[in-house]
Amino acid sequence: MNIILVLKIISYLLLIVSGFMLIPAGIALYKGEIAALFSFIPSLVFSIFFFIIIHFLSARRSNNNLSTKDGFLFVTFSWILASIIGALPYYLSGAIPSMADAYFETMSGFTTTGASILGNIESLPMSILFWRSLTHWLGGMGIVVLTVAVLPLLGIGGLQLIQAEAPGPTVDKLTPKIKETAKLLWYIYTGLTLAEVMLLMFAGMGPFDALTHTFGTVATGGFSPKNTSVGYYNSAIVDWIITLFMVLAGINFTLHFRFITGRHKYLLRDSELKAYLFIFFTAMLIIACDLYGSSCSTMADSLRYAGFHAASILTTTGFATTDYENWPALSQTVLMVLMFVGGCSGSTGGGIKVIRIVTLLKQAFNEMKYLIHPRGVFIIKINGQPVKKDIVYAISGFFFLYILMLLATTMVAASSGSDFTTSFTGALCTVGNVGPGLGLVGPTKNFGFFPDYVKWFYSFAMLTGRLELYTVLILFTKTFWKK
Amino acid sequence: MNIILVLKIISYLLLIVSGFMLIPAGIALYKGEIAALFSFIPSLVFSIFFFIIIHFLSARRSNNNLSTKDGFLFVTFSWILASIIGALPYYLSGAIPSMADAYFETMSGFTTTGASILGNIESLPMSILFWRSLTHWLGGMGIVVLTVAVLPLLGIGGLQLIQAEAPGPTVDKLTPKIKETAKLLWYIYTGLTLAEVMLLMFAGMGPFDALTHTFGTVATGGFSPKNTSVGYYNSAIVDWIITLFMVLAGINFTLHFRFITGRHKYLLRDSELKAYLFIFFTAMLIIACDLYGSSCSTMADSLRYAGFHAASILTTTGFATTDYENWPALSQTVLMVLMFVGGCSGSTGGGIKVIRIVTLLKQAFNEMKYLIHPRGVFIIKINGQPVKKDIVYAISGFFFLYILMLLATTMVAASSGSDFTTSFTGALCTVGNVGPGLGLVGPTKNFGFFPDYVKWFYSFAMLTGRLELYTVLILFTKTFWKK
Repeated sequence: MNIILVLKIISYLLLIVSGFMLIPAGIALYKGEIAALFSFIPSLVFSIFFFIIIHFLSARRSNNNLSTKDGFLFVTFSWILASIIGALPYYLSGAIPSMADAYFETMSGFTTTGASILGNIESLPMSILFWRSLTHWLGGMGIVVLTVAVLPLLGIGGLQLIQAEAPGPTVDKLTPKIKETAKLLWYIYTGLTLAEVMLLMFAGMGPFDALTHTFGTVATGGFSPKNTSVGYYNSAIVDWIITLFMVLAGINFTLHFRFITGRHKYLLRDSELKAYLFIFFTAMLIIACDLYGSSCSTMADSLRYAGFHAASILTTTGFATTDYENWPALSQTVLMVLMFVGGCSGSTGGGIKVIRIVTLLKQAFNEMKYLIHPRGVFIIKINGQPVKKDIVYAISGFFFLYILMLLATTMVAASSGSDFTTSFTGALCTVGNVGPGLGLVGPTKNFGFFPDYVKWFYSFAMLTGRLELYTVLILFTKTFWKK
Repeated sequence: MNIILVLKIISYLLLIVSGFMLIPAGIALYKGEIAALFSFIPSLVFSIFFFIIIHFLSARRSNNNLSTKDGFLFVTFSWILASIIGALPYYLSGAIPSMADAYFETMSGFTTTGASILGNIESLPMSILFWRSLTHWLGGMGIVVLTVAVLPLLGIGGLQLIQAEAPGPTVDKLTPKIKETAKLLWYIYTGLTLAEVMLLMFAGMGPFDALTHTFGTVATGGFSPKNTSVGYYNSAIVDWIITLFMVLAGINFTLHFRFITGRHKYLLRDSELKAYLFIFFTAMLIIACDLYGSSCSTMADSLRYAGFHAASILTTTGFATTDYENWPALSQTVLMVLMFVGGCSGSTGGGIKVIRIVTLLKQAFNEMKYLIHPRGVFIIKINGQPVKKDIVYAISGFFFLYILMLLATTMVAASSGSDFTTSFTGALCTVGNVGPGLGLVGPTKNFGFFPDYVKWFYSFAMLTGRLELYTVLILFTKTFWKK
């Protein structure tokens, strides 16, 4: 293992992360939020020192080879360290006086989970709230693209890291040059961001609200600077704009790239996109019918609320415009099922991911065919292409580990005395990076009441879920540490 | 497909099932329960007529070949038809006036689920209660052994059917002759039954109570003729006897056979048995520690209640000696996790089965090894033997379908307005053939309040879960019906 090189790349990342703190620091300066202003400085100072020390230490080393193991270490520890850096402003400004809480909130930000420990969000300084939403934006596309863009800067190919980010269907090579790809993905990401900001401001939102909500949307995060989330605006236009962008953010970004470059035929034959839209519209319709006549009096309202929350939960964003805890049981259960599914691969969404569900479903059907024709040969096809058995194997393993991780997280929460609904959906929402669940972690409540050890475990669960389980869990195996 | 031969074998089975009705009919005669007595006759008459007609129709046909497809049809329809025959006494005697309820109760009996729609069990005639418990006993070992014992009677090898019963690790060939094996398994089953009856009577139970509770135990069913289940006796001795026999009934019966024939070494190296006992004792200890000082004042009591319910839920029996809904959240969640697991393969227990969990766990770890050494060769071993990839594939498919079936069942229950805990654990308990769950389907409650369509779906879920999903679901595929 090349620990020093891993730390070197992480030091770049930390510098970028703390560099972005200059924006909320500027807001603090402008708004006269003195405590908040000073709370951003230590992270910046630490990152610079860390950068200098690591570069000093690595100056004489010329080994620029990064192994797969280094990749896992880099991905996992960059998130752990970035969350420490990112948590300092909360803690030092006094906005979140407990380190367990501050770390939870930052990890929830960077992993684009959107689960919060804050009861009264609006009481926080504007600069801190801006930083909170910015962690989503940085985290969302962040790691996937940074590992593609930063590593080539250091002369290292990063394809094995993208694989570490997404075990399962390997990342489609968009263009031969990874650096180019990363740039293109950034353009799409910022393009989506700008488009949503403009539309939201057009709909009457102020620039601060438009920006923070956009960060929460395109990163499928879910942090809102308002206590009542997007429900604060009580506007059908705002709801539909955000619904649209949540759905867009849950789609594989390579498809956006192909759409922009005019290669529309890829979209039509993309198995994951078709399944994703099918799941979204089916869930929306079931919920709308369920809400019509119970929680909503008109079909237009039913569709609006159903569409918003189906998109919010399926894409693992976690925004809310109403307390869906008051909805009929069926609608709540549909949302719970969507928490399992999650967004598309190569998007900012969490969960199991649609492509895995599609593959496993096809495999389950294949197994039935084998029972009838034991000597037949049945191939699973995704996007018209046969999928290798090894990949199906990896997905099966992932699915089992995911359920195991859910049950373990449920048990940890239950050990603090939380009821079954709270513990179970709390696990779904942290491992799946969704945000709010049902019960005591419902959309109008927060994770603040849990004891510290549960919050630390939740931070671990969010990280593990975001990094596709294997990346983190592999560090706990003997094989990893064997020479 | 050889429908006429399938019906012919089913007609044997129905004759056996209705033949067993002579015992409760005898009780009805002895106790003077006239309505109950007459309620048993139509099933018997129907079975005899069915037998004669089918034999008349098949007299001129000499095709005695049974295909795999026929096997699936036979297994599924024998359970569906047996449950109709079995439900008639409930319905005709007036004990259960709704057919949806009567069918649910019978399916719950034959699938050894133990979920009940009855509020006041003790108000039923003794003969009907005896029949209710007898459905467990017949169902428990029933199908596995009958398919092995009856089919050879007709000159047909039945190994493909055993495979239909248990996709996953294929059934270990105990002795070369299937008929012999079936007999041996029956001996073990009746041996366990006699041993438990004697011990329970020794502990002070009357013969009726001892017999009915034994039927519920050795079949891992869970029907009790008492409203408060085994809690009625409030006896530590009774609790421990039943705990022991539940644990024994959850073990692969081939291991009992090997134990009796002196081949103990097999037990020590059996991966499933070791994992099963490990899960049981771990769950028991966690619950005992959780109960000590909260629901129980002494450690002896904590262990007694923890052991009983860990065994009852893990083996998917479903007996209760206390309302575990009042237990601390952690204990309840541990029980919920046990509902997922279930007993050993080749036992009367339901759930996913320990062997599958062990295999999937080993596979998930293997996937991590592949991530580090992509060109390595890592083999999964069970009982010291390598497991074929195809079998791991089949298990993965099963696991995914199981979760899918759970979510579908949850949605159906939720559509009737049931809260999340009730809907979800209701699904776990029917698909996993456990019995009672949490919430409104907790151990002191029953499934009676659900609307009829949910009860019919639950009957379907119990059947599908009991027959290892594939056996039933395959009938819904196009491939099955293609020539």
